[in-house]
Order: sequence, then structure tokens, then C-alpha cells
Amino acid sequence: MNQQVLSTQAKQSTLLERYKAARMQTEELCEPLQPEDFVVQPVVDVSPPKWHLAHTTWFFESFILKNNLPGYKLFDDDYPYLFNSYYETEGDRWVRADRGLLSRPWVNEIMAYRKYIDEHMNQFLANHQLDDKLLDVLEIGINHEQQHQELMVYDIKHILGINPLSPVYRSFATAPYQPNLGVNFLEVEEGVYDVGHAGEGFHFDNEVGAHKVFLHAYRIQDRLITAGEYMEFIAAGGYTDFRFWLMEGFEWVKKEGIKAPFYWYKEGEKWKHYTLGGVEEINENEPVTHISFYEADAFAKWKGMRLPTEFEWEVACKKFAPNVPGEANLLDLKHLRPMPRKGENLQFYGDVWEWTNSAYSPYPYYQAADGALGEYNGKFMVNQIVLRGGSFATMREHIRLTYRNFFHPHLRWLFTGLRLAENI
Amino acid sequence: MNQQVLSTQAKQSTLLERYKAARMQTEELCEPLQPEDFVVQPVVDVSPPKWHLAHTTWFFESFILKNNLPGYKLFDDDYPYLFNSYYETEGDRWVRADRGLLSRPWVNEIMAYRKYIDEHMNQFLANHQLDDKLLDVLEIGINHEQQHQELMVYDIKHILGINPLSPVYRSFATAPYQPNLGVNFLEVEEGVYDVGHAGEGFHFDNEVGAHKVFLHAYRIQDRLITAGEYMEFIAAGGYTDFRFWLMEGFEWVKKEGIKAPFYWYKEGEKWKHYTLGGVEEINENEPVTHISFYEADAFAKWKGMRLPTEFEWEVACKKFAPNVPGEANLLDLKHLRPMPRKGENLQFYGDVWEWTNSAYSPYPYYQAADGALGEYNGKFMVNQIVLRGGSFATMREHIRLTYRNFFHPHLRWLFTGLRLAENI
Amino acid sequence: MNQQVLSTQAKQSTLLERYKAARMQTEELCEPLQPEDFVVQPVVDVSPPKWHLAHTTWFFESFILKNNLPGYKLFDDDYPYLFNSYYETEGDRWVRADRGLLSRPWVNEIMAYRKYIDEHMNQFLANHQLDDKLLDVLEIGINHEQQHQELMVYDIKHILGINPLSPVYRSFATAPYQPNLGVNFLEVEEGVYDVGHAGEGFHFDNEVGAHKVFLHAYRIQDRLITAGEYMEFIAAGGYTDFRFWLMEGFEWVKKEGIKAPFYWYKEGEKWKHYTLGGVEEINENEPVTHISFYEADAFAKWKGMRLPTEFEWEVACKKFAPNVPGEANLLDLKHLRPMPRKGENLQFYGDVWEWTNSAYSPYPYYQAADGALGEYNGKFMVNQIVLRGGSFATMREHIRLTYRNFFHPHLRWLFTGLRLAENI
Amino acid sequence: MNQQVLSTQAKQSTLLERYKAARMQTEELCEPLQPEDFVVQPVVDVSPPKWHLAHTTWFFESFILKNNLPGYKLFDDDYPYLFNSYYETEGDRWVRADRGLLSRPWVNEIMAYRKYIDEHMNQFLANHQLDDKLLDVLEIGINHEQQHQELMVYDIKHILGINPLSPVYRSFATAPYQPNLGVNFLEVEEGVYDVGHAGEGFHFDNEVGAHKVFLHAYRIQDRLITAGEYMEFIAAGGYTDFRFWLMEGFEWVKKEGIKAPFYWYKEGEKWKHYTLGGVEEINENEPVTHISFYEADAFAKWKGMRLPTEFEWEVACKKFAPNVPGEANLLDLKHLRPMPRKGENLQFYGDVWEWTNSAYSPYPYYQAADGALGEYNGKFMVNQIVLRGGSFATMREHIRLTYRNFFHPHLRWLFTGLRLAENI
Repeated sequence: MNQQVLSTQAKQSTLLERYKAARMQTEELCEPLQPEDFVVQPVVDVSPPKWHLAHTTWFFESFILKNNLPGYKLFDDDYPYLFNSYYETEGDRWVRADRGLLSRPWVNEIMAYRKYIDEHMNQFLANHQLDDKLLDVLEIGINHEQQHQELMVYDIKHILGINPLSPVYRSFATAPYQPNLGVNFLEVEEGVYDVGHAGEGFHFDNEVGAHKVFLHAYRIQDRLITAGEYMEFIAAGGYTDFRFWLMEGFEWVKKEGIKAPFYWYKEGEKWKHYTLGGVEEINENEPVTHISFYEADAFAKWKGMRLPTEFEWEVACKKFAPNVPGEANLLDLKHLRPMPRKGENLQFYGDVWEWTNSAYSPYPYYQAADGALGEYNGKFMVNQIVLRGGSFATMREHIRLTYRNFFHPHLRWLFTGLRLAENI
Repeated sequence: MNQQVLSTQAKQSTLLERYKAARMQTEELCEPLQPEDFVVQPVVDVSPPKWHLAHTTWFFESFILKNNLPGYKLFDDDYPYLFNSYYETEGDRWVRADRGLLSRPWVNEIMAYRKYIDEHMNQFLANHQLDDKLLDVLEIGINHEQQHQELMVYDIKHILGINPLSPVYRSFATAPYQPNLGVNFLEVEEGVYDVGHAGEGFHFDNEVGAHKVFLHAYRIQDRLITAGEYMEFIAAGGYTDFRFWLMEGFEWVKKEGIKAPFYWYKEGEKWKHYTLGGVEEINENEPVTHISFYEADAFAKWKGMRLPTEFEWEVACKKFAPNVPGEANLLDLKHLRPMPRKGENLQFYGDVWEWTNSAYSPYPYYQAADGALGEYNGKFMVNQIVLRGGSFATMREHIRLTYRNFFHPHLRWLFTGLRLAENI
Repeated sequence: MNQQVLSTQAKQSTLLERYKAARMQTEELCEPLQPEDFVVQPVVDVSPPKWHLAHTTWFFESFILKNNLPGYKLFDDDYPYLFNSYYETEGDRWVRADRGLLSRPWVNEIMAYRKYIDEHMNQFLANHQLDDKLLDVLEIGINHEQQHQELMVYDIKHILGINPLSPVYRSFATAPYQPNLGVNFLEVEEGVYDVGHAGEGFHFDNEVGAHKVFLHAYRIQDRLITAGEYMEFIAAGGYTDFRFWLMEGFEWVKKEGIKAPFYWYKEGEKWKHYTLGGVEEINENEPVTHISFYEADAFAKWKGMRLPTEFEWEVACKKFAPNVPGEANLLDLKHLRPMPRKGENLQFYGDVWEWTNSAYSPYPYYQAADGALGEYNGKFMVNQIVLRGGSFATMREHIRLTYRNFFHPHLRWLFTGLRLAENI
Repeated sequence: MNQQVLSTQAKQSTLLERYKAARMQTEELCEPLQPEDFVVQPVVDVSPPKWHLAHTTWFFESFILKNNLPGYKLFDDDYPYLFNSYYETEGDRWVRADRGLLSRPWVNEIMAYRKYIDEHMNQFLANHQLDDKLLDVLEIGINHEQQHQELMVYDIKHILGINPLSPVYRSFATAPYQPNLGVNFLEVEEGVYDVGHAGEGFHFDNEVGAHKVFLHAYRIQDRLITAGEYMEFIAAGGYTDFRFWLMEGFEWVKKEGIKAPFYWYKEGEKWKHYTLGGVEEINENEPVTHISFYEADAFAKWKGMRLPTEFEWEVACKKFAPNVPGEANLLDLKHLRPMPRKGENLQFYGDVWEWTNSAYSPYPYYQAADGALGEYNGKFMVNQIVLRGGSFATMREHIRLTYRNFFHPHLRWLFTGLRLAENI
């Protein structure tokens, strides 16, 4: 048995372990929920938790088992129609906006589906050596499940947070804060820099292609903007002063009656917000979150600065904070919130996704994959904004220098935030 | 103890029994459901079953216990906001269209709410003699619960019926059909007739006021139009021939792509439909159901006739079939569908609600009740159409000669149908 | 030449004169306008004046000339598509809501179209004896043109009235007011009454069929409700007190932010409104106008009374004011507004259309005409409310006891008003 | 008088001449229209021509005369409200989507407004020496008027083109075509390049800031994609094959029923389109136009290539075709359409605006101007795509290497097109 084979075997073995861990993680997230919580879809961007449970399962069924495990029989012939998200290659599907209209399959039926797929995956991986291409699909499937874990946290918070009863998802010990809120500007001089993903390691196709960009000299903050700083923006009339706003942002603010981040409200003189632990007074030291790109951009203009581009973020981060700290991880469920900057640490990863000043466009060497997985990232490259850094709800595997997250500029149910930059 | 007091005591005792029966009946309807089924709201007209469970309970809490049971404490201070339907008198409320966005309270919490109210109602009625006015409210509350039972049957069918899995609500023995489909026309001569509710017996305020109407001579069918007859209308191109349609009906047909009754679809040459027992081939002998007023009216015009007015229906019914047969009752769950006319019986009650040619307007002596219950019927008297007769899902108490049901003309998720009339 | 022939000749000759007068009247209404005013459509219910000019012309072309004048050639092959309103029988047509998107044909082209049709009509009527059926169509065509004259007055007022420049349509001498605002109640005893159109005389098919109705005893006001009385309703908080409103009305009020009749606004303590003569302070003695059915109904409930049904209106009117006074006529352009009740005259005709408590439904002997003209009235018999009496903008021919006008309950750009009734 | 003063005088004198020319040009564009054509607004993106006439006039009144000409009196106090487009600094304004609802002011009133402003501008410039800042505003005002000239051509085409009568705007001699449809790829090697506007010369703030970008090696076509090439895309099923489309583009195609460029339709086997000269068969040699970014992007993917970024376009253009040819100019009204590539000429300017692969984002040294003019460009920098090159309807002053036009990706009533690029 040659080295290559050994390596492939080892890879498969590792992936199987990671598969099991990811699958279990998904289910742990659902532990505080009862069946009713798995069903609702308050807005089109949110999916019912049971849909996530089934869709991530369908991914393995459709892209691995269906065409590779000899004799495999679909768990249910209707499920591909119900649980395909947006893969045109995979055929027709239930309308996204109507996911909350389906009471069936029940959660216990979906759990049976998960079990069925897990057993077949176990069996398949135990008895067959997968080729590299299929191992890559497996790796993507695990990462895909992890992305949905993060989405589930957003969605569960939305489902519970709009409920007048303000239910608690999970009580958690709030960490003792020892915040260091001093802010420094990191300086980067002009030059040609390498960006994008190079080397081994898992990554999505949208970050592929190490390439060069020219950056003019700039400085960038070493921590995130805090809730307290954001309150000053509100107090200064930021939401009603058109000078700070993109026109579409200002129209959005007026039409939706936006006056603060999502989940924030004022009770007397106090700002409060709904958190996964219930309603609390807002801690001014925490990074502000649940703001749209429009709000982030307006805040920056109010400060007389701007958001960094995605490349300014990446280059500064690579220079000053190239290593992701270990604790950036959803598995650590003790906080379930963004944390203040810790001591002297630069704060770049794992608190909130940072809106950048970059539209989500293809890299020079971007090449969509063939087949259904080519639909994973590329077809979204218009009208969206790149976010960098990862949130407290992001799985460890998704926190890296080159990772490009992307959302429409008005969205804010995810854990978003910002830092500022300016030219030198 | 005088006669009057005895009679009031007896009345209260009877009402308590009926209260218990009604409450139990509601819960029996939910027996085939799991928690997920209680949550969804596929269209604004449908309410999630758990909302019905709570709203009917809130009715007793708000209109009886809250102000009359000394020391009564609300089960939950947020519930009135969540479960008030449309009573402006009772204050703000959650938006109707968003009832399906609420995963909480869970079903078991709502069942606890029901238990709490039932216990307090029992205690209140056991220990206090209610005055006539409050007994009337109790009577209304029971009838209200029964109306919601019928709505729950509509809503459960809708929730399950739009699901691609076509789940079965309850399997039931389809009765052996001995249909008599011959149709006769009953004749009524011109004259002044008494209509509306007179005498004792429970009734809603919208049917109050025995009064006179003049009817010109007419004839009216002695049974309902069947699915088979309706198929002929479809086959004759009825849905695409504008000559039979009210303009708003024809626009509705085109915009919504309507080609058959709700739940009907064609498989090859066969018409099938979703029923509470699952998908079946359509029995041509059954009354057609799930049609809008627009469709009923178009069918009548296609036949060269018209729908009867609500008074023509009532007068013919009073003359020819004054007594409601015993079996018209949802409690009989063996069919859960409209049945063909039985032998020589006139078919006037308890199969499907019949669209009439009458807009829902106040009677000459209509007087809305004071307070919140004045909002029960009167404020809906515009843009709606009167239906008469009762469906197989209608509680026995709601099947009477003078009962006026009303819905908007485009609705058809309820059990609707028609019969024809014409001038002599 | 026998009597019948003579009579038909005379009838044709009279109709030709009336045709000419009606055609000229339409154009006189447009005299204050410049081409830009003929184009716009501020809401779907309003049509651009040039559309009215062309549509009424198309009516004669399509229903008289096209199939009856030998050798007749359409003025323009595209015009039937552009100027058919809602006659399915006549084929496809430009979408109603988009009438304001058409700059062509220019007004002068449409005037050429009118001239072309007028010349051919003249020629046709001069040289051919029309049969009775065609003479009936001609009569309808004239009445149709007159209906559109009234609509043009509504529409011109809307087009100019929403313009921030508040332009004057036509300055007019406001009549010296000698109002008699005393109000009496006319009493009608219970009984069977004849209603509907009988005898010769022109009438629409929806008022056909003299028939009987039973009315319970009632009293009805002898004049219209005034602007001053309506101001009291506003001052008493009528628009925000749900108890007076139909639910759909209250939702409409809240959604649209309705606080007063259309065209009314408050400047300091004064109520002002836009009139065809420009902005004025509101004369409290004039009948209130530009209110929806919802507002009329709420006002009546606030007063503890109700609107009369269409039959109560007709029977009272026949009993007390059977003759339409001569001056009820748009041709008299000196006012262009509803006038206060004159001296002791009963005020029943020609000021504002009165909302009744009757939905627009078919009469017992209603029979739609064959062919396209059967679409004139019948297909609108749902979700609309009957109005009676005629407005100051109504042509003399349209003011009669049995005339049934009908509009949706939320509309108020037409000249609407109300009187009150109650049971005895 | 020193050199500087002389130069400023000369500049003012030149600007006055250009002012007059621009003002006259606007009115010449309207020469084929009659008043009705000035009023309509078929979609929100289109403005009625009379609005353009007034808005460009308001620009000079608001930004020059109002605050600088002593004693200046507004032509009409209501006009700023009516003709401000989107300048929050300038106060409230009529809703954009409702511009087509205004029949007043009439066109002749707006022409009087133009005359009034022109006279005051003449007088002001004849009698006062403007400072540099005000001369800059004047320069912007002239460029602003020219931008609206181009918009007017788009808008007039839309207004006439959706009219079922397909009216001719202006008949023009179609040039004899001597097309050279051979296509070559121009190659650019990797490196750091200078982009953005440097030096004197007029330019907008969004192109300010010469700065550097790194480009990887690429090749780019030397002419535009033709209608004939685009027909092949259609024939190959391009519009129904999801693989070529951005998801939002594919949803747009399905929802809007898009099957070809705007104004195209098929008659038998022939493709025809509406042009400013009326309906014609499509000349396959002409550049394709009236396509959205989505369609341009899908075409490129179908060809296995991509759109160039705005910097790839600019660098290639600067290298190979730095000089704008004289004839790129709307003033030349002989074509009113994009032309095929002429002989061996590189085709980069003045045929159609080219969709690039670049979202519209700020340049590194972007700085919005102070005051109202800061709203000119900056507040649109989200969700839009950069177009380069200029169309046949673009004024000469707006055709330059560094000019950045921008529109939302679904728009196609403007004159858009594309060329392809790929990595080397």
C-alpha cells in the first residue's frame, strides 16, 4: 500500500470523524427547541430549523449516496423536492418563501431521515474507499452542514426574538468582562499584496486563486466598533441625517422605520435587546451587532472614515493577526454573543462578521465547479457585500483569513458588525 | 325558590354540560395532529390550530372570568394580546396575517391554558349563580367554540392539503352510497313571507328580527349540485367563457389560474381531490364543494338559472323541510365529507354551505349588541355573501333555518356548494 | 306611410339631435384643458380624458357603424384594442391600469377620430332607417356618452386636485345661498311597494323589472347631510372610534390615513377643500361629498341611525318627490358643486349620489342583454353598493327614480353623499 | 488684468457658450414631440420629458441663481418641490414614481421657465464675474443637462416604444454599412496600472483620484458583441439554461418572462425591434443593445469568457485607443442607433455603454463634494454596476476614458451592450 493510498485512507478516516461531529453538533443546537419551534419562517431569509435538519441531510444523500452507494434507495421520493435549496441542477423544489407552510414531515420523521443517512454514510465510508473527488464532496458537505449550523443560530434567534414572549433559547453564564476598549490604528503601506486562498486546506471556490492587488496606504482599527459607540451615533441623530447614508439605505431606513440595530429597543433611557439568553440591558462594551451594511456605512461616514475593503481587511489581518485564536468557535456555547476585545489582543476573528466596502465579485481566477456544486457560490455574485472575520456562531473551520461571506446589504438578522479604516 | 330561579339554575346546569362537551370536542378534533401541525398558517384566512385552541379559551377568560370571577388572575398577561382575534374593544392584538409566525406558546402550554380556564369555569359555575346576561355570554361562548371547531376542520384540511405529502387527517369508512340523484324543483308562490329568527332558542344577532319580505314566485332544486354536474361545466369550457362570469370573478380566475374547485386536479382523464382521508378519485355523486361564490354563480348562469336569494332558500326550506335531520353533525366523524342526497329526502342541511344570491346586509331590525360582542357579526356586513344550510363539519347547534353564515366571494377553503333556482 | 313608421322616423330624428348634443357636450367639458391634461391617470379608477373621448366614440363605431353601415372602414385598426373598456365580447384590450401610459394617439388625432365617427353617424342616420333594435343601441350609446361625461368631471377633478399647483378647472359664480337647513323626517308606512322601472322611457337593464318589495315602516330625512354636520362627526373623533365602523372600513381608514373627505384639509382651524374652481374654505351648508360608503355608514351609526336601503329611498322619493326638478343637470355649469337644499324643496336629485344600505344585486326579473351590451351592467353585481339620486354632474337623462348607480364601497372621487333613515 | 483673471474670464465666456448650446440641444431633442408625449412615465426609471426640461432648469436656478444673483426671484415657489430629483439638501420633493401623474405645469409653462432662467443666466454671466467655485458648478450644470439629454433619449424611446402604435420619433437615413466584424483580442500584461481621472479637464467626483490597480494578464475583444452573435445565444437556449445565469438574473428572467433584449420580438423567423425610427428588422451587424447586466453576464458565460472589469476596460482602452473619435456624439442625429465597428477601428466609444464586471464602489481617494452636489454620485454606490464607453446618445463631453456610468443590473431601457474578456 503506497503512501498516496495511505494518505487517502487517513483522510477518509478523519473526514468520517468530522462528519459525525458535525452531524451531532447540528442536533445539539436543537436541543432547547420543541417541535413547534422547528416549523416557522418569520421572513423569507429565515428557514425553519427542521428544514435545515433535512436540507443538510439531503446534501449528503444527493451528492454522495444517491449516485455512489450501490443499491442506495432514497429515504423518501418527495424529500428532494422539499429539501433542495437552490440547486437548479437537482431539479424542481418547493418555493423558498413557503418553507414555513409545511407542518410535515414532522421533526421526528426528519430525525429518522438523518439517522437513515448517517447509517448509510457510515456504512459507505466503512466499506468503500472514496476517490479524491468524492472526498472533496464530503468535505464540502461537512462545511455545508457547518454553515447551516451558523444559519440555524441566526434563524432560531429570529424565530424566538420576534415572539412577544421573548423566550430564552439557552441561559448562559455571561463572561466576566475585562474589556480593553482602547483603539489603535494598524498601518499598512502602499504596495502589491497577495490575497486569496493558496495552498492546501479546505476553502470554497470563491476564495480560490491567490492573486495580487495593489493597495494604497491605509490605517485600520484593531478592534470592532462597540455598542456604546453605536449608541452615540443614534444619539447624534445618525438615523435621520441623510448626509451619512447611501440613498437606498436611507429609503430603507424610512420605509422600515429603522431607528436602531435589530433586536434593540429603548425602555425609558435604557437600551435593551433580545439575546439568545432573553432580554437584557445592552452592554456598551460589546461589539455592536445586527446592523445592515447601510448602517455600518452610515456609521463610518458619520465618523469621517470608511469601511475597509475586503482586501484591506485581509492584508492587515495577515500582517498583524495571521493566526486564528482557538476559542473562535461556536462549540463554545458559553457566550452565544460577541465579546469585547480581550486585553491587548487584536480583535479580528470570531465575534461578528464585518461588513467591508467590497461588493461580492469573482476573483480573477474564479472558476465555478462543474455540476450542481458550481451553484454553491458563483451564482450569487451580484448585489451582495463581502463580510469577513466570522462570528461567535461560526464554526472553527469557517474562520480563516481568506474566507468570504456575503449577504445583501439590508440584512441584519445575522451577527454583523464593523471596524473603520481610512487612507493615510 | 320560584320557577324563574329554578329555570335559571337548570339553564346554567345545562350550559355547563354543553360547555364541557364543546371543550372536549375541540380537543378531539386535534387528536390526529402532532405539534408541528398546530403552528402553520398557509394563507391569511387560515389560523394555526393552536391559535384556535387558545382563542376560544381567551373568549371565556375575557368575557366571563376576568370581570366576574372574584379574584381571578389572568393565566398569562401576554395571552390577550396574542389571542384576541378582532375585538377592538379588547385592545391591541397580534396581526392576523402573522399568526403562523409564532412557535410559542407551545401546544402543551396552550393545553395548560385550556385546563386552567376549564377549571376556573367549572369552579365559577359550580359556586355562583350567573345572571341571564352572563348566561347569554356563556351560550355565545359555547357557540363561538363550535364555530371555531368548524373553522379548524377547514384549516386543518388546508394545512394538510397543500402539503406535497398529502397526509391523511383521519381514515374513515366511506359510507355505502345509495344516492338518489333525480332532481325536482320545489315551487313557491308569490307573497309576503316571514323570515328571520323569532321565538326562544339560541341565535346570533344577525338573524334577529322576524320580518317580512315579498317574494315573487320561484322554483328551487331539492338537492345540491353534484361533482359530476360540475365536471360537465368544466368540460364545457365554463372556466374560460367570460359570458358566465362576474367581472371580478373572471379576473380572479385568470389571475389565480383557477381551473377547478380547490383541491381538485386531473390525473390523466380522472379527476382526483385531496380529502381529509387523503387523495381519492372524485365521487361524481357527492355534492360539489370548495367552490367560490364566483364559481357557483358562473355555474348557475351556464345552466341558464341563478342562485336563490337567502330568503328564497329560507322560505322554501321552512315550507318543505322545516326540521333539521338529526344526523347533520360533525360529531359524526364517519364521513368527513358531504354526502349525496339520501333517498327521497330533501337535501337542505348539513352537507355543504350554499352560496346564495344575497349580499350580507343587516336585517331591518338588526341591532348590534353593546360592548365587545357587538363586534361579533355586525362589522362584517359589507363585501360578503350569505351562505345557508350548514356543512358536514357544522355543529348541530349551528344548523337551523335562519342561520346566516357569510364569507367573501372568492373564498373556497370552507365546505361550500350550491343549488339552483329560477323564476316561475 | 303608417303611424309606426312615422313614429320610428321621428324617434330616429330625435335621437340624431340628442346624439349631436351629447357629442358636443363632451367636447365642451374639455374646453378648459390643454393636451397634457388629457393624458394622466392618477389612480386606476380614473381614466385620462382623451381615453374617454375615444372610448365613447369607439362605442358608436363598434356597436353601430362597423356592422351596419355598408362599406364602413375602421378609422384605425389599432383603436379597438386601445379603446375597448371591458367588453370581452369585443376582444383584447389595453390594460385599464395602464391607460395613463399612452401619449399617442394625440388629442388632435382623437378629435379627428370623433369627427370621422360623427360624420359617418350623420351620414348613416340621414340615409338609412334604423330598425328598433339599432335605435335602442343608439339610445344606449348616447346615455353611455353621458355617463362618461359625468366620469370625466370626476376624473378631471382628480387629475387637477392632486396636483400641488391646485389648478382651476373653471371659475364659476357661486350661487347666492339661501339655504334651508331644517331637516324633517318623511314617514312611510309598512307595506308592499312597487319598485323598479316600468313603462316606456329609456332605462338600463339593471333597473328593469317592476317588482314588489315589502318595507317595514321607516322615516327618512328630507335633505342631504351637510358638510357642517360632517365636521361635527370629525370633531367628535368619528374617524378613530372603531365602534362606528365596518371592519373593512376601519382597516381602510387606518391603512390610507383617512381623516376627512377626499380633497379636504385643515389649515389652522379652517377646513378647506379643492373644488373645480380651486381651493376654497368649505361652506358648511353644502351637502358633504367625496366620502366613501364606509364613511357614510360610520356617520349614520354615530348618529344612531342608518342609511336607507335603495328601496326605501325609491319608495319615499316616489311618494314625496316623484318629479325630477328641471335644473338637475350638468349642462348648467354655473355651480359645479352640490348645493344646499333650496327653500322648502325636498332634496332628492342632482346634488350628490347617495350611498344606500343596499349591495348591488340583480332584480328578480333581471335579464342581461345578449351580446356585448349584456356586459354593460350585469357583470358588476358583486362587492358594489347602490347609489341613488344623481349628482350635480349627472346628465338630466340619468336622473330618475329608478336609476341604480353602483361603486365599490371605498371609492370617493365621485360626488357622493348621504341621508339618514331609521325604523319607526 | 493678470493672467489668472483673463483665464477666468475666458473660461466664463466659454462656459456661457456651452451653456447656450446645451440648452438649445435639450430643446432640439423635443422637437418631434407634441405636448402629450411630455407627460407620461411608463416605469419608475423613466421620467416624463417635461420633467427633464424643468429639472435641468431647476438645477441652474437652485445652485447658481438663487443664492448668487442679487435680487433673484424664484420663477414659481412650487417648482423646487416639483423638480428637485433626489437632493435631500434641497428639501422635500414630489415622489419620483409619481412624476407621470402631473399634467401641470403645461409644457409651455415649462418652456417659459426655461426662458426665464436662460435670460437670468445670460444676464448674470454677462454682468458678474463668477468665482472658480461657481464656475465649477456651472460646468457641472452643463454636464448635468447633457446627462439628462441622454436620459431623454432613453425615456422618449421607452415612451414611444411601449405604445402599441409604435410611433416614429424621427426618421433618419440609415448609414450604408461597411462593417468589419472580424474580432481580435487585445492583450494586456500583468502589472500595476494607473487608473482614474488625473489632470485638468472636467470630470465627476466619482472618477477622481488617479490611483493604482494591479491587473493580472488578460485579453479583451476589440469590438462590441453584435446582434447576430446575440441571436445565436438565444437560439442556443441561453435564456432557459440556468447554468449561465446569476441566480437573481435567472429569477428576473422567469418572473418578467424575458426572452430577448428589450424592444425585440419575433415575427415568424425574423427578429424585429422598435427603434427611434420605428419598427425594423434587426441588422445583425449592429452591436446588440438593450440588455441587462444579467443578460450580458449570461452571454459571456455561455461563450466561456467573462466581462472585463472596469479597470481592464480602462487600461486596454488607454493603451490601444486613447483618443475618443470625433464622431461619438449625439449631436450627430443621423443614426440614432449603435453602429457596427468601422473598418479596422477599435470600437470603444460612443456606440453602447458596456456592462463591466465591476460593482459601482468608491475609489480609494473618493471624497464627496460638500453640500447638495455631494449627493450627485456618492450616495448611489451600492447595488449598481459600472458601465463604460458611452453610447451614440451620449454627449461628446461624457465620452472619456475614465467616465464611470452606473445602473442597476436589471435595467435595460438605456443603450447597453458588452464585450468579452478572459485571463491569459
